This record gives sequence, structure tokens and C-alpha cells, in this order.
Amino acid sequence: MRASKYYIVTAKEAPSEAELISHKLMLRAGLIKRLSSGIYTWLPMGLKIVRKIERVVREEMNAIGSMEMLMPAVQPAEIWQESGRWEFYGKELLRMKDRHERDFCLGPTHEEVVTDTIRKDVKSYKQLPLSVYQIQTKFRDEVRPRFGVMRAREFVMKDAYSFHADYDSLVVHYNQMYQAYCNVFNRLGLKFRPVAADTGSIGGTGSHEFQVLADSGEDIVVYSDECDYAANLELAESLPSRSERPQSKASMLKVATPTQKTCEEVTEMLGVDLATSVKSLVFLGVDNKPVLLLIRGDDTLNEIKAGKLKQLKEPLEFASQEMIKEAFNCQPGFIGPVGFDGVVIADREVGLLADFVCGANEDGYHLTGVNFGVDCKEPLIADIRNVREGDPTPDGKGKIKLCRGIEVGHVFQLRTKYSEAMNVTYLDQNGKSQLMEMGCYGIGVTRILGASIEQNNDESGIVFPLNMAPFELIITPANYNKSEVVRLEADRLYDKFKAAGIDVILDDRNERIGFLLADSELLGIPYRVVVGEKTLLEGKVELYNRKTRETELVELDMIVQNLVRQIENERS
Amino acid sequence: MRASKYYIVTAKEAPSEAELISHKLMLRAGLIKRLSSGIYTWLPMGLKIVRKIERVVREEMNAIGSMEMLMPAVQPAEIWQESGRWEFYGKELLRMKDRHERDFCLGPTHEEVVTDTIRKDVKSYKQLPLSVYQIQTKFRDEVRPRFGVMRAREFVMKDAYSFHADYDSLVVHYNQMYQAYCNVFNRLGLKFRPVAADTGSIGGTGSHEFQVLADSGEDIVVYSDECDYAANLELAESLPSRSERPQSKASMLKVATPTQKTCEEVTEMLGVDLATSVKSLVFLGVDNKPVLLLIRGDDTLNEIKAGKLKQLKEPLEFASQEMIKEAFNCQPGFIGPVGFDGVVIADREVGLLADFVCGANEDGYHLTGVNFGVDCKEPLIADIRNVREGDPTPDGKGKIKLCRGIEVGHVFQLRTKYSEAMNVTYLDQNGKSQLMEMGCYGIGVTRILGASIEQNNDESGIVFPLNMAPFELIITPANYNKSEVVRLEADRLYDKFKAAGIDVILDDRNERIGFLLADSELLGIPYRVVVGEKTLLEGKVELYNRKTRETELVELDMIVQNLVRQIENERS
Repeated sequence: MRASKYYIVTAKEAPSEAELISHKLMLRAGLIKRLSSGIYTWLPMGLKIVRKIERVVREEMNAIGSMEMLMPAVQPAEIWQESGRWEFYGKELLRMKDRHERDFCLGPTHEEVVTDTIRKDVKSYKQLPLSVYQIQTKFRDEVRPRFGVMRAREFVMKDAYSFHADYDSLVVHYNQMYQAYCNVFNRLGLKFRPVAADTGSIGGTGSHEFQVLADSGEDIVVYSDECDYAANLELAESLPSRSERPQSKASMLKVATPTQKTCEEVTEMLGVDLATSVKSLVFLGVDNKPVLLLIRGDDTLNEIKAGKLKQLKEPLEFASQEMIKEAFNCQPGFIGPVGFDGVVIADREVGLLADFVCGANEDGYHLTGVNFGVDCKEPLIADIRNVREGDPTPDGKGKIKLCRGIEVGHVFQLRTKYSEAMNVTYLDQNGKSQLMEMGCYGIGVTRILGASIEQNNDESGIVFPLNMAPFELIITPANYNKSEVVRLEADRLYDKFKAAGIDVILDDRNERIGFLLADSELLGIPYRVVVGEKTLLEGKVELYNRKTRETELVELDMIVQNLVRQIENERS
Repeated sequence: MRASKYYIVTAKEAPSEAELISHKLMLRAGLIKRLSSGIYTWLPMGLKIVRKIERVVREEMNAIGSMEMLMPAVQPAEIWQESGRWEFYGKELLRMKDRHERDFCLGPTHEEVVTDTIRKDVKSYKQLPLSVYQIQTKFRDEVRPRFGVMRAREFVMKDAYSFHADYDSLVVHYNQMYQAYCNVFNRLGLKFRPVAADTGSIGGTGSHEFQVLADSGEDIVVYSDECDYAANLELAESLPSRSERPQSKASMLKVATPTQKTCEEVTEMLGVDLATSVKSLVFLGVDNKPVLLLIRGDDTLNEIKAGKLKQLKEPLEFASQEMIKEAFNCQPGFIGPVGFDGVVIADREVGLLADFVCGANEDGYHLTGVNFGVDCKEPLIADIRNVREGDPTPDGKGKIKLCRGIEVGHVFQLRTKYSEAMNVTYLDQNGKSQLMEMGCYGIGVTRILGASIEQNNDESGIVFPLNMAPFELIITPANYNKSEVVRLEADRLYDKFKAAGIDVILDDRNERIGFLLADSELLGIPYRVVVGEKTLLEGKVELYNRKTRETELVELDMIVQNLVRQIENERS
């Protein structure tokens, strides 16, 4: 490729809309162009990178026998109604009516379509197991699209689905997928961690997320340096910090807290530890009556864990101000368990408190020295808080650390969730009809690019790993359009590298060398050969490594052979 | 690929919904699966073929310097309003509102998006010319989706767009595209014809369609065996069949035609030639008054030509029954030019008639012996009829023939239609702002597959050309699961062909040989090697050519070498 004929439009500054470094750099490098909120065009260089990611994904999927297919973007409402997700999915599902006023949606995922296909085509155990995937454009109408391609509304995803005669077969393929995902992310040079995850709205049991570690990530990864434990924050179980509740030493006292509503404000006024206070939260119960959830003042509620409580309405819904007023006879800032006769569910840590501080159910007052079984009834106990740095891991072998991650992959054991809803059966060896076991597996193809740039950049721009770079090598001639000796040598090297199968671009643009060098830094091309009159006089060219930022002079008659070998070794 | 591990679901019968042979065969072969009206899933084998088509398209696009990019499927209304097509496009444009009630559509084509991108990125003549393309999923909400992937609502298209500083540059690239399209269709083994075409709703000047010749085609192709002339029916100019109007010999007479309303009925009753009658059609004029169009009784109106008449409202609209009643004082079956004082436009052939038959503008009556300039005023003359087989070609060098075609490609010179509407300018050498010239170029990627099957099938199934076949070769062992000698030899040949780079499938399914052979016929795989105990005893295998249907016995030690050479020669 000659740069003068290629679509290269770089910029010194990124538009103010971009917050994340990856978003800024992708816009500055001209990889993407914004069309509308969360909707981007992939310019030629950006698409070239996406295609390289797709190639790696495809190779790893094919290697485990998953077969590529392509399902429609536009999906009829009927199958979503059948699975029950037409109602459940909410506004993220972009819905529309066709010219005949029939309901359709733009697919955010394809469980329904693939399940419908398989139930039509697969009838016998002889056809199982079966694994299919697609690399396809999806749409999710995000509340707040942001971070460029990381949380875009339209994006490219690899989604795979597998169907099995029994659970054992599902587990075998799930493990193959897990390994294939590790291979993909390793080959693309990502620093990532697979973590145990909640299955969320997809449902089913058994799931892992693949988190690219980055400070800008929206997810929190829970791990330990002392053992193998890794989970996302939503799932991470918190062990109680002590074995039993201490002896009570105080009696209940009502204290005036006229303007103090939060645990922080109340404990600060009282001069006691925040960890001795209890936060009260009111949710709607399954019977639409208020349910009181208690967590320690220094903890945060884990809404995924709370959402699984069978006493609460699904999905989780906060009680209204009116309902709180009616049930507790005070404002939300002053509520507590004392005197409340509805269901009370306390986090494990709260269950282990004695002499705690909580609201008095009277505006302007809190209580101190409160004890379960004395001042109020014993609550139900559950794990409903988020873990904290330093907590023990659930296996007890280490201490928890937290870091931020970007989810780039997710594998699920769906089991029979969709098979049951959509009646997907096969005949077993005995001619008996059985439900299929099912798994689903996703990779955010376009998100990978953003996540990779979050991990690989410096003050000059992007630092692409070789397998993901738009070009493996850039030849940057100084004065290509003025110096004949430079032009001839640059052209000769370009032809040689091209013939050797290197993905090379010759920057023959009629611009100052400083401009060309800055562009090659910004674009993050792993290797650069600078061809200039001065070094040519010594029979040498300058080889630059974008990652190490080291420059060396290499003999003209060695450069092709050496660099080709180096690049070939680095490919994976 | 081993068939036992591959997604092969064939059927003996096609669902009744399928009319066309290609649609039936694609369903029977398990290439596609219907999800909803005009919406199909591409099953693994179908997608494999689509990818082969895409590869050829991509290679030819890259060869002329067009750069691949990827634009969004979901497009904001604003840019369509800017180009004026939001109103114009009608119900084929699938519209929707996002969660913030903003208007969007699902892209049926991408002129607006690409124009918006280019006007943001390209500022100088130095960046021109510039050509980009994408292979992307489009949606058109067809009134009547039919013929499977031929007129689907969701389909894959290659659309390219080029931008130029001047018209000469546009013409150069237009001609490159024209040639690249010929290369694509030739390499894919299609019998096609490029024809001059109307630019339709896209607008602009200069356009060719690429028509795959097939009796089932929806388009009519006009050509000649004696000269180069080729056009689609919409555009084909009809020359007058004689040089001047003959002498009048009769006088106008009113005849009772109580139940005869059509030219056919009236001339049959009168016992005269249909070609002496005149059909009257009433359309809305630019001033919303009725305009009378006259064509000969044996001709058909060409609505594209009529649509270009400056006297008529755009788009073409028939006058209502009420308007006809008011203007002519009779029913539509009895109208004519005599006594009508509005605008009358006659086809060239009508202008050359004397003593003709037409409606009397009185219910139940027609007129005979009517003459322009005598019984009614001379009409305006225009070419508004469809050409007929046997007409002279416009260059006068041959006679017109008609055949049916399937449009698989279209190239347009858009000129400045979108540049003007969306203000796409660049600075020329003198720093002066100029409008860009623009071209657009489309290939119906998924339609090609249907069109190819229309041309390549027989009573046993599909007959794929090598470049488009799901596999180049199938190895069909007789009793693979029972005969060890067969299994060993089949495996050995499979490994050898695979190692030689042949796209080969080994049909190791545990089914009767008759079933396997029928499947290989249906799937249209160009070459088949049958491995059976009987021929192995003689050291031979059976080689079958799907196209010629010839079978030959080939020495085991020659088959790989010979067939690999044959397949390599046939690739293009």
C-alpha cells in the first residue's frame, strides 16, 4: 500500500466528545468517524484492524469445530415473545414496525434466532453436539453510549451457540470455548483475566467473563495474588469477617440527628466507627409490600446479589417515597429495623454486629446501642454486599484485590433456558424426546480494538501489537518526492518486503519528514524503516521499534532478511 | 471438512413458498433458512459460498484502488433529510425511533453516510480522486419480498462510492469499475450482459446495469445480435417504424361499442388491426390538471420515459376516476383526444397514424377514421412506449431482441447530485471551492448466488461453477463406516487433497451410498471422487464431473496429481 493512495486522515487534536484515551486516539488516527451518538463508520485503516481481529477469532472458532453462519440483523417479535424477552429486554432493544405494521427488532443478540433455526433443522442425537458462530453487526440502544467503540450502540460481535444432548457434552464444549477465548486474547496481545461471572439477563448457570485489565474499565474484577480466585464484583461472594456476633455491651438510646441522614454524617457526629452503623434500604417485595435490606455503613449493596433474593420483586425495584413514609412514618434518611414488622434481610456482616447505630423511624433521630433479638427481631441473613479489597477470598486461601476491567468476552452455560421456552427437543438413542442443553459465547470484536489501545499507548499515540496493527511495517522515506536515490531505495525495499509477505505501507506522501514520523507514531505501526540520503551514503537504513522506541542502523543488505524473520517470529 | 461434523441438512422437497428453482434448491440444499418474510439465515454452507463471492468482489475492488470501509446499518434521519430522500424514499425505507424518540432508518444504501464522511475528511484536490467500498448488510422493506435471496428484505451488498475533482476523473474511474464488474461476473462464471440503464431514484447521469440472463428475471434486457446495442427496457429508445404519416383516406365515424372498452375488444369487433387503434391514458400534470397520453393499441407505456415528461407531475400519478369523469364526461374505457382541450402527448408511433380508432368521450362509443389536425389538434410527440422485439436499434444497425435478466450490478455517474444537496466541496489548485463529482457502484452479493443457480442447475440439483462452489471436491466413500479398506483410502485421499490446497469435503456420514451421491448432486459440488471396494481392487477410483455428468475411472496413483492440476487451472 502506498500512503498517497490510502485513506489516511490524522488529526493533532481529538474532538471534545472523547473522554477515554482509546477513543481519542482512534479518532485522531482516523480509524473511526462518528455518524451519530454511539454509531461509527469504520474508515479503511480501522476496518483493516477489525479484519485482523476477526481472522484470529475465526481461526480459533474453526479450530474447535464451530461453524460460521450468518443470522439476520432484523428479527421478528414473535420469537422474542416466545422466549419471553420481548417484554423483559426494555429500551435497549431497538424495536420497529415494518410496512405491514408487524413488530421487529434489531438483534442485540441471537439466542432466539439460532434456537429457532436449530429446532427446525436438528431432530436427532446423531446431529449433536453442534456449534455455530457468526461475526455480525449488532445494535443495543444504550442509555448512554460512550467511550467510542467500547460502548457503542452499533458494534461487531462474534456470537457462538452450541447445542448438546446432555450436560457433560455442554461442559466439554464450554471448556473448549474457554480455552479458545484465552487463545484469541493471547494472540491479540491483550493482558486479560477470565473471571467467574453472573449470568445476568441471559439466564442459566455457569459463566465466565474475559476482562481486559485497564484503569478505564467499567467493570470491577475481584482477584487474589495468593490463589486462583477471580470473579467479577457482581458475583464475588463475601465471607463474614468474624465467626460470631460479639457480646452486647450497651443499651438502646435515641439521639437527635436533626440534619444527619447518612451513616457517614451520623457516625461522624457521634464520633464512632462507620463500621458500627447500619444502612437501611427499602425494596419492593414479591407481594408488593416493603422489604428492608440492611448493610453495614461502610459497605455497598450488591444489586445482583440482592436481585436474587426470592423475597424481592424481579427486577429489583426501590420502594417509593410514599411507601416508605407509610411503612416507616419518616423520611428515608431516618429508617431502621426497630419497630418495623415487615421482612428484614441483613447482610452477613450486619448479622454479626452488636450495639449498632441505625435510624429511629422518626424524623431527626437515630438509635445507638441497638441489638437484634433485644431491640428488634432477628433478621434473615444473606450475602448482599460488595466485597472489599483485603477481604478473604471465598476459598479462604488469599486476600481479595480489586482492579478495573473491560469485558471483551463472555461464555455462558445456558442449559435448557431457551430449549424449554422455545421447545427445542431431539430424539435420543431410545427414540425419546429430550430437551437440548445449550451454551452461548460472545466476543466484542470491535470493543477489543478499544480495549487494546487502552493497554497499548504512550504520549505519541497507539502502540499496536503486531497481530492487530493496521500495517506490520511502515517505510518512511525522507524527501521521497525530491531525492531520487531515496525514492529508488524506498521503492526497492517496499517491493522486497511486499514480496516477502509483509503487510507494509510506503509513506510516499509529499509531506515533511517530521509530519510523516509523527503519523507513524500516532498510528502505532510496530516497525518503521526510515530511508534517508545520509544513512544511505553509509549503506544503511534506520530501523525503529514502536514498542521499545529503540532505533538502530541496519545494513541495507541485511534489513529485509532480518526484519522479515523478526516479524514472522512475532506473528501468532 | 468431514461431513459428519458439518452442518448439512438437505431435503427432498422444498417448502411450497418457493417459486423459483434457485429458491427451491437453496432451501433443499440447506444453504439458507427462512426466519421471516424476505429475511433469511445463511447456514454454514450458504455462507461459505457468499464468502467466496465476496473474495472475488474484494480482489477486483482492491485491484482498482478502491478501499474497503464499513458504514453503519442504522442511520440518523438528519442526513436523509439533507439529501431530500427522507420524504422521497417511501415505505421501502425502514424507519424507527430510538429511546430518545429520534428518527433513524436502516440503510438501504449509503450515499448519505459516505457523503457525510467525505465532506468531513476531504478538503483538498490533493486527496482526490478517492474510492471506497463496503460489503455490508442492507435492508429494504420490499412490498412483496420473493424469490428467496433474489428479492429479500435483508441482503448483503457491495456498495462503492467515488469522489472526484472533475468529470473526466469520474469517467476514468467509472470505466475501471465497469471493467472490474465484468471481471467479477466473469470469474464467478455468470452469463451476463452490461446494459445502458436509467438512473432512477438515485439520480445523476450515465449508468449501466449488469444483467444475468435468466428466464425467471424480473427485468427485460434489450439487445441486438447485429450490433453492440444493449439497454434495459426502461431506457431503450424506440425509433419510429416509418418516416411520415400516411395520407388520410377515411372520415371520422362514431360507432357503438356498448361493452367494448379496450383497444383489443374494439378492434376485434370492428375487424381491424390492433395497430390502427389508440389507447388513451390520463395522468396528473404539473399543474394538477389531466394530461392525455396516447400510445398505439398494440404498444405498452414505458413509465420511466413518461415519468421524464416535463408536463407531468413527478412521480408519475394516474388521474382519479373522478377527474377523468369531469374532464372527459365518460368512463376511462371510452376516452380519446377528440374534443379534449388539455395537453395531449402522443407516442411517436401514434403521431404517425392516420384514420385511427379511439374513444369518443361518450360512454358506449368509439370513433373510427380519426385524424390529427382534422378531427382534433396535433398532439405533442414523445417517445413513451416500450420497444418491441424486431424494432430497429437506436443506432439503426440492427434489430432489437428482448430477453429477461436479473440485475446483479449497477454503476452510476451521480455527478453532483449529493455534493450539491449536502455541500461537499474541496479547494482546487487555485484555492477555490468546488463541488465534488461523485459515482456510486453496487453489486448484489447475495443475489448473485440466486442468479447463478438460476443459470446453473439440472434435475438433480445445483451445478456450481468452481469459484462459487461450497467445496471444490467431495470424496464419497461407499461404506466408509463398514469397509476398512475404503475408509483408509478415503482418509488418505482426503489428507492429500487437503494438503494440496483443495477445498475438499469427505462425506463420512453413516448413510447409504445412494443418499450420499444424491446429496453431492443436489449441493452441486463440481468434482466427486467415489471410493469403493470394487474399483479399489483394480487400483482405481471413480471421478465424476458434476457439470458434464461424465464419470471416468482413474488410477489411484494419478488421481490427486491430475485433479489438483485440473482444479487449479479452472480457478480464476
